Amino acid sequence: MNWRARLLALDGLMPGMDESGALAWTTLADAPEGCDLVFLGLDEGKACFAAVPEAGDIAPRLANPALWQAMASLRPDDLAIYGGARSLVDWHARHRFCAQCGGPTTLAKGGWQRDCGNCGAQHFPRTDPVTIMLVEHNDRLLLGRGKGWPEGRFSALAGFVEPGESLEEAVAREVLEESGVVVGEVRYIASQPWPFPSQLMIGCHATATSDAITMDETELAEIGWFSRSEVAAALVGEGPFTAPPAQAIAHHLLTWWIEK
Amino acid sequence: MNWRARLLALDGLMPGMDESGALAWTTLADAPEGCDLVFLGLDEGKACFAAVPEAGDIAPRLANPALWQAMASLRPDDLAIYGGARSLVDWHARHRFCAQCGGPTTLAKGGWQRDCGNCGAQHFPRTDPVTIMLVEHNDRLLLGRGKGWPEGRFSALAGFVEPGESLEEAVAREVLEESGVVVGEVRYIASQPWPFPSQLMIGCHATATSDAITMDETELAEIGWFSRSEVAAALVGEGPFTAPPAQAIAHHLLTWWIEK
Ligand SMILES: [Zn+2]
Ligand SMILES: [Zn+2]
Repeated sequence: MNWRARLLALDGLMPGMDESGALAWTTLADAPEGCDLVFLGLDEGKACFAAVPEAGDIAPRLANPALWQAMASLRPDDLAIYGGARSLVDWHARHRFCAQCGGPTTLAKGGWQRDCGNCGAQHFPRTDPVTIMLVEHNDRLLLGRGKGWPEGRFSALAGFVEPGESLEEAVAREVLEESGVVVGEVRYIASQPWPFPSQLMIGCHATATSDAITMDETELAEIGWFSRSEVAAALVGEGPFTAPPAQAIAHHLLTWWIEK
Repeated sequence: MNWRARLLALDGLMPGMDESGALAWTTLADAPEGCDLVFLGLDEGKACFAAVPEAGDIAPRLANPALWQAMASLRPDDLAIYGGARSLVDWHARHRFCAQCGGPTTLAKGGWQRDCGNCGAQHFPRTDPVTIMLVEHNDRLLLGRGKGWPEGRFSALAGFVEPGESLEEAVAREVLEESGVVVGEVRYIASQPWPFPSQLMIGCHATATSDAITMDETELAEIGWFSRSEVAAALVGEGPFTAPPAQAIAHHLLTWWIEK
């Protein structure tokens, strides 16, 4: 019954790729004995699955250089499949127990749920909304370098939406906390899923009503205002800073700002 | 040291209110012995806290009629404080154990984190992004009645953003699943936090490219297209259906559509 099924090739949480640079697939026979399988969907009439790694075998949750390189070479549809699979598999690997009672949980609904056999609680995959914002003042953008980022790499400020906030409130609070800058009008631009581990990046434009900066030194290493010509130059690799890579929504937002 | 602090009065997860209809506050002396306290922020120089209910004393997660009534009478700033507090307190009450290892967790960072003493994992409050969308075709809107809703109550379709989806993809998938209708362009309108238990409602407008309906009978009891005059009449209580209450983002979206 299983012959019309295929298994996503994963090395830990890294994508396997074939000679053509496409995502590699194997058969369910390659899944470790007794492991949990997550149903990803149907593709060309075949059921597609990913296997949850063994307990204790959980990879780091951040994108690393090898992964950035893999992501740069994957086609957009393969990147979407890999991103969704990675988010789900990572969630399962970190939710083998019930947060409500501590009992063991088991995979349910093809991998889109985990059930607690002890207290009956149902648990669902988590996606965290994150705002990422272009803050503009007098035709300049506020960009920062996070602690631990490479020298010269700058990007848009970003942060998690907290309980009880609207998107617009989250943008204003995050900008104030990280930079001391006050923003007025906030506008939605675009969104993108980001599977490290499972975020919905929500890209916005915010108009600043002041430009004096008080940097949050726990989050940022540097911050500053950059002119339109500086941002345009950075996007073609010739600016005073290194722009975010093309797969990141920040790159898309900067391009949108230059072209608007 | 604690005299400049106050405790949000909660009856389970229901808000306590004073005679003027404002949120009621008491002192930290009223917090149960040894209970977890969540720091909500500073207000007029006073530290504001909420107490996490005892284990086993967890209220239902949906808004009930008494709560709708309380929400209708609270001022917007009180409603925002209550919503954020409710989301956090509910999250703590349901995350006393570590999903990664099953060990007990303890409150950290004033209630914005829980730490596992066994495996060291850090856990953060959860907010689920939910899309809610006005689907338009030939100047009519697609509205549905959920299973279990009162007779005559219709609202915009809505659903959780799943791992690996953008906002726009989530809107298109959800509308297709619930109604069989295909949508083209998707536009962001507004967002609102919704504390049952902790959601970020993201309101969008989507243009349908077809109007034939195949209703998802597991989710919906009724669905249909409503004209501009029908929606306008419903918003003043005289339509062919009951509109969502004023505190819900769906009400705001319908009003936006009528006024645009
Ligand atoms: Zn349980
Ligand atoms: Zn643990």
